[in-house]
Amino acid sequence: MNAKELKERTYEANMELERKKLVIYTWGNVSQLDADRGIVAIKPSGVPYAQLAPEMMVLMDLESGNLLEESLRPSSDAPTHLALYRAFDGVCGITHTHSTYATAWAQAGRALPCLGTTHADYFHGEVPVTRFLTPEETVEGYEENTAVVIWEAFQGKNPLHTPAVLVRGHGPFAWGKDGMESVHSAVVLEEVAKMALLTMHIAPEAQSLPDYLGEKHFLRKHGPNAYYGQK
Amino acid sequence: MNAKELKERTYEANMELERKKLVIYTWGNVSQLDADRGIVAIKPSGVPYAQLAPEMMVLMDLESGNLLEESLRPSSDAPTHLALYRAFDGVCGITHTHSTYATAWAQAGRALPCLGTTHADYFHGEVPVTRFLTPEETVEGYEENTAVVIWEAFQGKNPLHTPAVLVRGHGPFAWGKDGMESVHSAVVLEEVAKMALLTMHIAPEAQSLPDYLGEKHFLRKHGPNAYYGQK
Amino acid sequence: MNAKELKERTYEANMELERKKLVIYTWGNVSQLDADRGIVAIKPSGVPYAQLAPEMMVLMDLESGNLLEESLRPSSDAPTHLALYRAFDGVCGITHTHSTYATAWAQAGRALPCLGTTHADYFHGEVPVTRFLTPEETVEGYEENTAVVIWEAFQGKNPLHTPAVLVRGHGPFAWGKDGMESVHSAVVLEEVAKMALLTMHIAPEAQSLPDYLGEKHFLRKHGPNAYYGQK
Amino acid sequence: MNAKELKERTYEANMELERKKLVIYTWGNVSQLDADRGIVAIKPSGVPYAQLAPEMMVLMDLESGNLLEESLRPSSDAPTHLALYRAFDGVCGITHTHSTYATAWAQAGRALPCLGTTHADYFHGEVPVTRFLTPEETVEGYEENTAVVIWEAFQGKNPLHTPAVLVRGHGPFAWGKDGMESVHSAVVLEEVAKMALLTMHIAPEAQSLPDYLGEKHFLRKHGPNAYYGQK
Repeated sequence: MNAKELKERTYEANMELERKKLVIYTWGNVSQLDADRGIVAIKPSGVPYAQLAPEMMVLMDLESGNLLEESLRPSSDAPTHLALYRAFDGVCGITHTHSTYATAWAQAGRALPCLGTTHADYFHGEVPVTRFLTPEETVEGYEENTAVVIWEAFQGKNPLHTPAVLVRGHGPFAWGKDGMESVHSAVVLEEVAKMALLTMHIAPEAQSLPDYLGEKHFLRKHGPNAYYGQK
Repeated sequence: MNAKELKERTYEANMELERKKLVIYTWGNVSQLDADRGIVAIKPSGVPYAQLAPEMMVLMDLESGNLLEESLRPSSDAPTHLALYRAFDGVCGITHTHSTYATAWAQAGRALPCLGTTHADYFHGEVPVTRFLTPEETVEGYEENTAVVIWEAFQGKNPLHTPAVLVRGHGPFAWGKDGMESVHSAVVLEEVAKMALLTMHIAPEAQSLPDYLGEKHFLRKHGPNAYYGQK
Repeated sequence: MNAKELKERTYEANMELERKKLVIYTWGNVSQLDADRGIVAIKPSGVPYAQLAPEMMVLMDLESGNLLEESLRPSSDAPTHLALYRAFDGVCGITHTHSTYATAWAQAGRALPCLGTTHADYFHGEVPVTRFLTPEETVEGYEENTAVVIWEAFQGKNPLHTPAVLVRGHGPFAWGKDGMESVHSAVVLEEVAKMALLTMHIAPEAQSLPDYLGEKHFLRKHGPNAYYGQK
Repeated sequence: MNAKELKERTYEANMELERKKLVIYTWGNVSQLDADRGIVAIKPSGVPYAQLAPEMMVLMDLESGNLLEESLRPSSDAPTHLALYRAFDGVCGITHTHSTYATAWAQAGRALPCLGTTHADYFHGEVPVTRFLTPEETVEGYEENTAVVIWEAFQGKNPLHTPAVLVRGHGPFAWGKDGMESVHSAVVLEEVAKMALLTMHIAPEAQSLPDYLGEKHFLRKHGPNAYYGQK
């Protein structure tokens, strides 16, 4: 994939974010990694979606974070994206939003429990919530440290099987094999976050889906014996 | 009805499902049975609605479940549809969704109570919720066994008078005399599921509609003395 | 106003009901009274909005309820409309819906309290809820008796100052000086019903707006000293 | 800016209010101040948005409140706008709405707590709620006194850092450096009001965002060291 194509795909994924109504104004951002070349394309900071164009996407070096050409300033969340790509092998697209229901769970400081098969089809077990950053982590290197608390929340968990996280007091990050798939993860996260809130409304004591049912649904769609979709 | 027409009607019902905003991405599916010929048409598995076409609908034999021609793979829920057609006489259209409010009730493990005439106009008494499938029923024949727990939930109930069910931890199935009518049932189910949640929000102790009022509304629209609609 | 014009206005008001998203399928109905001639036009029963046309509106005699020409069958709720026109002087348009939030309050059996100026701008004091109809009132003359319980709920209240009611276990009726204004009342009712539910969510002990504030807002828009709007 | 341009910008901001779905019918209003000339343009009273045109905007003298030309009557809330412009230096655009979630908080009589970074990005600390107006303040000079209770709620707070308020029992006012920015504030207020309600739904004991995180986000976007957006 050349730089032009990387920018175009990143642009398309950002526009999809708005079409799916997960963002308003300049909120949110999508990036995509070209793993072969170690290059990340990301939304420029503070530009409304209606004004975006493919050539406005900002190219950065995965390791150094340096800009690769004269460009707009990258999303202020870019250091979080870069650190996550370095930490999570196989993740090549990342979406950050302030989508309403997922953000409510993040603000409540609660992991999103797996209450049904809709969740289990996409996320293996609960979607974790991070701890708050400390005052020290906030003042200096805030965006990199956001990746640190995400990484901590995935100790013992496979990020490819649970492609989203809730950053406490902030909002969700979601990911996938490219930018567009990370938007897909973010859309599903928002929907299951809404379902979970409503479920607890009906039955405050609602329990997680039995593990064997969660496994069944996850494995219907993922892994060598998956039988969902076309060959 | 020839195979082409069966496919077209099934396609239209699937597209209606998306127009009514009950599904996103590849979620949900509608099938239709040609009872005279014992043939079922159903949505292919994992195909986004925007890419569907009438000729992509998959034809299956009602009894054996065999594919009747070279085709895409059917929805992974196809065995549930087939088993329900065999169990419920007169049902010739089935819709499965993960619509938000109905799924919340399914995840809460609660039958949907009849709290008003909107519900009573379409569903006779509560919309039942199934039990969880056991580990054994899940590992082997999961989709057929989903039909088994639905069938159990309708012992003593007439599925033609209450054309929907909540599968515990999963989501709703709804039905009717053809695919399009089953979508109609699914839309109404979602709406009354939302109303019921909001009603319990205002008055947690809200009671079911008195039986005589439920009967009145059901019989205004159904049965020999119905006087709703045109002759 | 001749019959053609009465039908056209009633048609427009019915279509507005769908545009405002208060109804789905064939739900709801609007009627308009020509008070000079004692003629009521109303939506035909069970016809989807997309298929409505002005000439399909059904004309009825206000007093006898007789059809005035060969026509479709009127809405099954027509007897309620006619009885309300006879009971409430000055009301010349009536809307019935199953709009989500207003219906939830009706199902909860709670009058809608005046919690803010949005409500007070349109409704003087709470929007009352009726009692349930008795079994006897339900079996025989159900629709006329629906008007009876509405009339009971307005003893000591001026229906022109509070142009809506919640029929217990059923849903709202709203009214105004013509069909279109009754739709306006129904839209506002739905919005304040949603606001009231959310208010009680934030503060379950939330109290009604002080009377003097409610009066101020009602009188800003209504009565001889109103100063809202253009002369 | 000449009068024609002031009217056009004010018109555009009012239309944006409807596009963002914060208002229905004739609800809400936006004004803009030309601080150099001491002239305010505001929406006319009671005119539906679909019928608005730039030349219908009403011009008023900031100090006296007098109309500056033959025109429609200004919004009945105009005295509140004028008094706020006189009280809050640097505010040159004001929006008033009855948006659903912000109004619910106003009706509940609760300040909107800062529960996350979405809120902190725009509002420094909680969005205050005013006290009720007294009977005396209501009968005489109601609209000016609405500005008085808003002013009281900002004692010790900088209105430029927290560009919105909830008027108890009524609804929100929001502001900015021009009419369009005040609409932006009103849109964000509605969104964070919804998030806050949902957050408390999930975790009734949810606490405010730690101050150091709120500061970080506010200062990422505001002040001399801001690094959000383009230079």
